[in-house]
Order: sequence, then structure tokens, then C-alpha cells
Amino acid sequence: MSRHRIVIDRWEGLREEGLVREPVRMVIAGEEAKHAIRIKRLEAGGFVDLLDGNGGVGLARVVETRKSRRGEWELVLELTEFRQAAPHSPRVEVLSAVPKGERLEAMIDGLSQVGAASWAPLAAERSVTDPRPGKLERLARVAKEATKQCGRAWALELGGAVGFREAIGPGVVLADASGGSYNAAGLPSVRILVGPEGGWTPEELALAREAGTRIVRFGPHAMRIETAAVVAAAIVIEHESRPAGL
Amino acid sequence: MSRHRIVIDRWEGLREEGLVREPVRMVIAGEEAKHAIRIKRLEAGGFVDLLDGNGGVGLARVVETRKSRRGEWELVLELTEFRQAAPHSPRVEVLSAVPKGERLEAMIDGLSQVGAASWAPLAAERSVTDPRPGKLERLARVAKEATKQCGRAWALELGGAVGFREAIGPGVVLADASGGSYNAAGLPSVRILVGPEGGWTPEELALAREAGTRIVRFGPHAMRIETAAVVAAAIVIEHESRPAGL
Repeated sequence: MSRHRIVIDRWEGLREEGLVREPVRMVIAGEEAKHAIRIKRLEAGGFVDLLDGNGGVGLARVVETRKSRRGEWELVLELTEFRQAAPHSPRVEVLSAVPKGERLEAMIDGLSQVGAASWAPLAAERSVTDPRPGKLERLARVAKEATKQCGRAWALELGGAVGFREAIGPGVVLADASGGSYNAAGLPSVRILVGPEGGWTPEELALAREAGTRIVRFGPHAMRIETAAVVAAAIVIEHESRPAGL
Repeated sequence: MSRHRIVIDRWEGLREEGLVREPVRMVIAGEEAKHAIRIKRLEAGGFVDLLDGNGGVGLARVVETRKSRRGEWELVLELTEFRQAAPHSPRVEVLSAVPKGERLEAMIDGLSQVGAASWAPLAAERSVTDPRPGKLERLARVAKEATKQCGRAWALELGGAVGFREAIGPGVVLADASGGSYNAAGLPSVRILVGPEGGWTPEELALAREAGTRIVRFGPHAMRIETAAVVAAAIVIEHESRPAGL
């Protein structure tokens, strides 16, 4: 079992990277504290990993578990190590049509797990409308929770809608059954486009080809948007992360 | 948009493969008929794909849409083509710990979409118990629905629990962060083992290695069971399906 992880919003009194010379105390309250103490049974002397979702990664020792005057659980930590982790490499950006309902949350969760760097809605011709503002807040919570679940130093970035014409170009991969296998390009950044379930229009496919976009097939069958997005990101990351020549 | 697909249990009066010489009439009733007529707006003269989930694939023309005496929608079809599709190649069998609740259904759906051939529960040391019998029926429905959704000729096969010692061996791939990249083996069949979220025990990893099982890492982060299973199957299928030398 891996160490328990806690996602925090800010570091208190942190001065320098690496080993923390003067111990820095932090108090975790709320649901995170309750979960760590009551469910994960963390006790004084144990260790937790801290993640801020922006590359900041810490190791902390539990000093005390206690209840506040208002009866809420608090976890008192002493930060012993801190480092700034490098961003994901390769940087895989996924732009996709927006799946309906809970399938959008499932996609954000899955993209976080496989190591994509960012997601944004793609405004393709047959796409459904953007997620509403309330939905974006919900997605940010899903991305934060996934950061904790899979131990990512960087949370999945969520962006605003991008038009199809701005999205295509060299270094871009468009997922479609008409394409060939993915070949590693050795680029530091790859953008993947996943279309709506009605498919791309012939005009979109022609525009993409003209702009130098690679058309790639990521599996033998039709896939739902969220499955196609997660699988395409995983396959691109797998190929771009392989030792050269394999 | 692809043609509407209907999954059927049996073929009526079918004699030979290929072009159907004497037109065979079939009547589709129930929810399938209602959905095809009311939601998909199928009309006389249109065409549908028929799938039986056991490799049987048909093309049929809509002769009539009508209501039965009991007021239920019926779709009268004439089968014009029939063929027996080859099974999935490579044949990818996934054995995994059983994810909780709806995540199990999501996994069966995802495995169907990426083209896995079968799934069965793996009885690893830290695994939770098998799905209950009622759950298996529900999973069969999910697999059938996915067959329709992604146009698979063969439905995902669902098997009974397999013990860890019977599951390991040569030609078997065990997903673990300690492994290397997946390399195509050119085998007609690959079995993938995905462990519980608590991870494999050191004893299980040692047993697997001794038995000649390959240990493979399928991504940079910890993944939930259902994500790991779907991504591992997709990556293995992608590598085994590539033109040689790429």
C-alpha cells in the first residue's frame, strides 16, 4: 500500500526546496483530516504525502491528531521534505467533444490516471454544447480528487472551449477509424483530438489533413468519447515514453 | 453516422452464409423495436445491422414498422446478407480484481469497446470477493449493450473466478508499476492480470516471475482497477495489431 496522500491548497511558511531545515508545522482540517484519521487511521509518527496539484510535493510526519473546540478533526503535520516536480513529459493535451452527464467526470478521472496534462472541450461541428460553469467547478473537484488518488504532482488542467480550426495543425493527432497506427514523434508535446459520437464531418477530416494533422486509429471498434479520449492519451503516452528503439 | 445496430438472440430460418438467396423475414419486438422506430426513426426501406454476439453478423432491410394487437411496436425485417465474423485477433483475456459498484459495469463496457475478448474475476490475495450471481446477469446485459454500441461481432465473454496460481505463466502479462514497457510478442492470445488497488503482495510478484509471467507497467501513475484493465487491454491490442516492424 502506498502512503496516504493529501491535496493541499497552499504551503505554510515554506522557504526553500529540498530538505526542510526548520520544521514547518501545518494543520489539516475538514473532511481531509477526518478521512485521514477515522478511515485511514493515521496516528502520530506516521507519514503522509502532500500534493498541491501545481508540482509541489511534500513529505510530512504526523505530530498529533486532535479535535478542535468545535469538535472537528485536525491533523497536525510537520513538513520534512519539499520538492517541485517536473511537469508531465510528454505533455499530452486532450481536446474532445463533451460526453453527457457522469461520463464527463469519468473522462476527467481517467485522463488524470493515465497521465494526460490537460483537457478542454473541442467545438466540433457535431459536438454538443460546452459544460456549464457549475459543471466546470465540479470537474475541478474531480481532477483534484484524481490527483490524490493516483499521486500526480500536477493536477489535470482544465481549459475553455477551442474551435476546430484553431485545434488542428502539425503535432496534432486526430482520432478516427480511417487512420493508421500511432508512431512516436519524439515531440515534447502532443495534442489529441477526439470527436463527437456522430463522428467527424468529411469537411473536418479534409481540413485536418490539409493542416498537417495526423489521423490515427486507436482501436478496432467504435468507442464512446470518454473511452476513446482515455485510451488515446494512454497509447500516446506509452509510445512517447518508451526507451528509444523499442 | 453508422447504421443502426440491433442485437438478436437467434436467426430465423437461416440456411447458408453469404448472400441470402431466399429472403428471410424476421420480426423484432419489445424495447429494441420501440427504440429503433421512435428514437432512431427507422422506416420501411432503411437498413439495419444485426449482431448475435457470437460472430453472426447480418444486414437487413426494414420491410415494415407496425404495432401489434397489444399495441407494441414491431419492426419487420428482411435479411439480405449474413456472415460469420472471425473472433478477435489477438485474443486478449483480462483477469482482474473486482471493482466496486458501478465501476465494474464501466469496466465491462470499456473492455468491450477496446476489443478485449473476455473478462473474469481474479482471486488475488488482496482482492475483494467475487461479483454475486445477480451481478453477473447484469454484467451480461452490459456486455450485450456494448456489443451494439461499438459494433462488435463477438460479445465480451464473462468467466468465473480464476485463482492466482492458475492464472500466471508464460504468455501472461501482469500489470505492475515495477515492470517495463510492453513489447509485442506476436502471440495469438495474451492474458492480462490486473491486481487489486492494494497492489500485489511480494509473494504474488515472486510467484508470477518464477512462472515466466511478464511484468509490465502500463502508465506513469497508479490507476483504479477499471482504468488499468481497459488501458492495459487497449495497449496490448494496439501493439499486437501493428504492422510488423513498426
